[in-house]
Amino acid sequence: MNKSIGVCLIGAGRAGMIHAMNFAGKTPGAHMAAVVDIDVQAAKDAAARLEIDKFYTDYKHVLDDGAVNAVVIVSPTNLHKQIVIDCANAKKHVFCEKPMAMDVAECDAMIAACEENGVKLQIGFMRRHDESFQEAKRLLDEGAVGELVQIHSCTRGPSKPRPWMYDLKKSNGILAEVNSHDIDSVRWFSGSEYKSLYAIGGNYRNREVAAQYPDYYDSVLMNGVMRSGVQFSIDGAAYIQYGYDSRVELVGSKGTIHVGRSNRDFTTCATVENGISSAFIRSWTDLFRDAYLREDIGFISSIQSDTPPLVTGRDGRMAVEAVYAGNESIATGKIVHLNDD
Amino acid sequence: MNKSIGVCLIGAGRAGMIHAMNFAGKTPGAHMAAVVDIDVQAAKDAAARLEIDKFYTDYKHVLDDGAVNAVVIVSPTNLHKQIVIDCANAKKHVFCEKPMAMDVAECDAMIAACEENGVKLQIGFMRRHDESFQEAKRLLDEGAVGELVQIHSCTRGPSKPRPWMYDLKKSNGILAEVNSHDIDSVRWFSGSEYKSLYAIGGNYRNREVAAQYPDYYDSVLMNGVMRSGVQFSIDGAAYIQYGYDSRVELVGSKGTIHVGRSNRDFTTCATVENGISSAFIRSWTDLFRDAYLREDIGFISSIQSDTPPLVTGRDGRMAVEAVYAGNESIATGKIVHLNDD
Amino acid sequence: MNKSIGVCLIGAGRAGMIHAMNFAGKTPGAHMAAVVDIDVQAAKDAAARLEIDKFYTDYKHVLDDGAVNAVVIVSPTNLHKQIVIDCANAKKHVFCEKPMAMDVAECDAMIAACEENGVKLQIGFMRRHDESFQEAKRLLDEGAVGELVQIHSCTRGPSKPRPWMYDLKKSNGILAEVNSHDIDSVRWFSGSEYKSLYAIGGNYRNREVAAQYPDYYDSVLMNGVMRSGVQFSIDGAAYIQYGYDSRVELVGSKGTIHVGRSNRDFTTCATVENGISSAFIRSWTDLFRDAYLREDIGFISSIQSDTPPLVTGRDGRMAVEAVYAGNESIATGKIVHLNDD
Amino acid sequence: MNKSIGVCLIGAGRAGMIHAMNFAGKTPGAHMAAVVDIDVQAAKDAAARLEIDKFYTDYKHVLDDGAVNAVVIVSPTNLHKQIVIDCANAKKHVFCEKPMAMDVAECDAMIAACEENGVKLQIGFMRRHDESFQEAKRLLDEGAVGELVQIHSCTRGPSKPRPWMYDLKKSNGILAEVNSHDIDSVRWFSGSEYKSLYAIGGNYRNREVAAQYPDYYDSVLMNGVMRSGVQFSIDGAAYIQYGYDSRVELVGSKGTIHVGRSNRDFTTCATVENGISSAFIRSWTDLFRDAYLREDIGFISSIQSDTPPLVTGRDGRMAVEAVYAGNESIATGKIVHLNDD
Repeated sequence: MNKSIGVCLIGAGRAGMIHAMNFAGKTPGAHMAAVVDIDVQAAKDAAARLEIDKFYTDYKHVLDDGAVNAVVIVSPTNLHKQIVIDCANAKKHVFCEKPMAMDVAECDAMIAACEENGVKLQIGFMRRHDESFQEAKRLLDEGAVGELVQIHSCTRGPSKPRPWMYDLKKSNGILAEVNSHDIDSVRWFSGSEYKSLYAIGGNYRNREVAAQYPDYYDSVLMNGVMRSGVQFSIDGAAYIQYGYDSRVELVGSKGTIHVGRSNRDFTTCATVENGISSAFIRSWTDLFRDAYLREDIGFISSIQSDTPPLVTGRDGRMAVEAVYAGNESIATGKIVHLNDD
Repeated sequence: MNKSIGVCLIGAGRAGMIHAMNFAGKTPGAHMAAVVDIDVQAAKDAAARLEIDKFYTDYKHVLDDGAVNAVVIVSPTNLHKQIVIDCANAKKHVFCEKPMAMDVAECDAMIAACEENGVKLQIGFMRRHDESFQEAKRLLDEGAVGELVQIHSCTRGPSKPRPWMYDLKKSNGILAEVNSHDIDSVRWFSGSEYKSLYAIGGNYRNREVAAQYPDYYDSVLMNGVMRSGVQFSIDGAAYIQYGYDSRVELVGSKGTIHVGRSNRDFTTCATVENGISSAFIRSWTDLFRDAYLREDIGFISSIQSDTPPLVTGRDGRMAVEAVYAGNESIATGKIVHLNDD
Repeated sequence: MNKSIGVCLIGAGRAGMIHAMNFAGKTPGAHMAAVVDIDVQAAKDAAARLEIDKFYTDYKHVLDDGAVNAVVIVSPTNLHKQIVIDCANAKKHVFCEKPMAMDVAECDAMIAACEENGVKLQIGFMRRHDESFQEAKRLLDEGAVGELVQIHSCTRGPSKPRPWMYDLKKSNGILAEVNSHDIDSVRWFSGSEYKSLYAIGGNYRNREVAAQYPDYYDSVLMNGVMRSGVQFSIDGAAYIQYGYDSRVELVGSKGTIHVGRSNRDFTTCATVENGISSAFIRSWTDLFRDAYLREDIGFISSIQSDTPPLVTGRDGRMAVEAVYAGNESIATGKIVHLNDD
Repeated sequence: MNKSIGVCLIGAGRAGMIHAMNFAGKTPGAHMAAVVDIDVQAAKDAAARLEIDKFYTDYKHVLDDGAVNAVVIVSPTNLHKQIVIDCANAKKHVFCEKPMAMDVAECDAMIAACEENGVKLQIGFMRRHDESFQEAKRLLDEGAVGELVQIHSCTRGPSKPRPWMYDLKKSNGILAEVNSHDIDSVRWFSGSEYKSLYAIGGNYRNREVAAQYPDYYDSVLMNGVMRSGVQFSIDGAAYIQYGYDSRVELVGSKGTIHVGRSNRDFTTCATVENGISSAFIRSWTDLFRDAYLREDIGFISSIQSDTPPLVTGRDGRMAVEAVYAGNESIATGKIVHLNDD
């Protein structure tokens, strides 16, 4: 048997702790070795919850820590590049959350560092690990709906954006924060790269920041064509409030596949006042809980078996490129043609 | 081409007018010739709405009316027997709403009268004409789910019972008024007759009449076995208020068929306050509107082509027998074994 | 009471006969007076089915026919303009199927002719008459989902395009033939006009005609912004084969409304081989049967009460304008900005 | 912090290992200490999978093992009584899978032993821990549907019964093996005890054993009344093959709650050949995976906080009593009135 992989979480927020709890008890061949957060109390609390002793406020301490074999990076996006490169140089395997980085140049540097050091680089597009998505991909690849023609993918998040997200220089907008999953799904299902796209954005739900952040958009539509000729359509929204609303449709030449669910649980109630009603799924943490676990298991398995991860640095990079192109289209009001790479 | 069948409605209430409107314009080969209601204003209004001149307050006038070839009887159940026999003797084809009559002896007399006079006798179990029910029957008969094992059929009505319904001597209870459709469906799907059954009833929603009508029940469960060995389970309720809730499940040896729908229209709304909600179907008039039309078309077609109707007097009789057995079971608290006929 | 409106059908194909059967028996205040089809046998058969005597092969005979008060025009689109103008000049009320005409100039001439002659002009966007659409509109207008942000509307048709449709000069493409309903729905729900749009089209299912008709597309995506700021996204497809697939989503600032259904009937079947399955709705004739009837009733009511129809010539015109813009965008690969009118 | 509870699994089959894997890594405050199976290879394999060293083939070794604080008993039902009593006497907390025991006398002895020794006794009705069931209970208790009138609960299992199940003396039939969950749910939702019931059973899918096991039934219907007056209806089936089909309906005086789902994942596929189809949920292990975990977390929490478990020995006992009554009803063809206790 392989020795157990010691994992260090860098960034102990909500998404980070989902991964950490997975590695702590549910992922064969792994254990939590340490946790890092710049907020000392957050780091301490996370360690306590994970039932481990070791916590840091500076990720640099991890670089020399022999008990750490792999890092899970869930820090703000603008810090990803440096952390990944440092960890790669320290021979730590890297799981980096999406969006991978602020621009393509950063992505390329991160990929190069990991390749040079012979460490894995997995990006957090967990939908590829989701059972429903995998079933859809299997049906598609088997030809159940003929040849792929169109992909429609939508993601709408419930929560008020955190203040830093209004600044597109920091967040790259909801195309990065919300829709990079859709952007990756379109690539994954089509097996092709973005050729051209057109996007429009607008601020409808957060108008109180419109004066200060005129570029901010909370609603976006983007359509275009992949190099293979497949058409795609993505829509996104932030602060929809009623729940986490995400679905994909794959239109084939002789059938259509639909992926998604909306119900929080499987209870419906019929009354005079409300008709038939059920609760909406609250959050991506509910919808993709199992996908996160499978993703984490996949990361460890990729290390243990020395095989490529299901979602690579290149996948992260290509999504960043499409986010850039989408933001450029919104800003200029023009169609963007992506360069061959 | 056959000459158009002149139809007379006897009993111009809500259900009656559905049939009359169908015969007035939507049923090939038929037209409305007259309408009867003991309330002269109701009769007059119905004639106006049907754009015909002829209306009566006594059905006896119809017997001599040569313009009437067929009657649709939607009067109170306790009047069915005499009207049917009189109309049959006057050589009018008969469509009689469910429940067919107050007891089996009445049914037998009605059947005999129609047979002796060579007129059609169709009973209003319109579910057999419904597209969804017919699709289910087709799947079942094709063996899609193997051999039939169990039938579950439920019907729940929204409305407050009308006062006369509380008296079981007048209404035979909701087994007759609400569940005779389920009772017929079980026979139809199984192709078999009732062998034994057990029923329990209770008054939960109309307790203000409990002292006056101690036998009245608004909620009923009935299960048992058909002669073929198929198990069945029926449940019924009156005054559920939120809508008309009716579904059937056919459990086969290697699959299950489900029939029914609950949504009034095909609009759903997701909001913070109500989760995902849609309106419940209001009434049997919404759920079975098309089935009523197909039923009426079938009646005329049966006359024109001189073929047996899809639902015969015997079907009506066997349902009455099962209603009686169910009421006996509720009253005695015992299992009832139905006699061979 | 008003006198019954005599209706003449011009173009006795499938959609035409749906209207004619409605006017023949299901529409109060109307009756079928005549039918026109250039194919004499089709005209004769239609008259027989409608149980009327009068049929023509040239619509010009209708112009002098005093028994005809209104015409329903379901001819090829390129004939609409002349027929409408001639009928208007003959003081016949006009119901014209969608798409209204080949271009905006034709629409304007048709509108002018009807206005000058004081006759009604109703265009066949029957979805506005559909119960589910009206429920969605009611919820939207009540503010159930806050302020409208995005509209997504898709329509996919099952059938192989008829040969003339491949020629965009004759058909204006599936944006006109399939998606003009979506184009109208976006206007209706938003209460606003198209400001700018971008469309992409491709031929994926009818490649055998690609050499002969290089412009032909059977799959289309179109997105853009309304003058009110509402974003929209439309997708369309022809020859999807598995059924008629049409849905609308209205994304509001605090909720989302979904309209549509996919199941042909309400029977589902669970088996080892097929999992849970149900039949897909076959055709718009199934999905919108009731909407057609309500539309026809509305047309007669508009004439009888001398009120504007629910869908006016201007509605038809604005849809044609958007179809043109979409086709221009596909042809040029550029965003199209619509002129103020 | 409390010290971690060492858990020993007794019976390393499929259901047992679900619990063991939960205690191994996903249940705060617990760890796996040992595993017992009479098959040495099964015991060894389970220990390896659980990454522990200690395994036994005789549960008696556990009684003296100070590292074991609690046992999870997933052995054949007829062994439950002795194991529970021995473990209780050895001061081990007990989680015993359903059905609790072969008869009520055994249950009483088990309850007494646990009470005398001051150890917890939790029975494995995991549905009470399921999120959807808890949501339904919450809605019911809040009065969302008024007063409870009827409960309908069905469970159908996919798998061929294992040979010992055909012998009702060993298995107590599918009322015990499949429907004891429904039997418990009816008690839980109604907050009342069984008053009278009637059950019918038949062998439809396993006829090859009918000669040898004439009492065996694979399809059952049971209805009756609770002491509170609530009506109930339970149906069960074994070897339905297409999936695990389980749903509950709570009919209230002014609304209805439905609990359940059928889809394995959230992917549907529309094609010409199959209409709209999705995969059926395979097994209780898929449907109730989260409920098992919550149940195991609840067990440890009950020990740590010294509070009663959510499902007590009395709950197990009352279900066994109802199973007995149901089997008696099937065998005698009579209604069974349960004694006051």
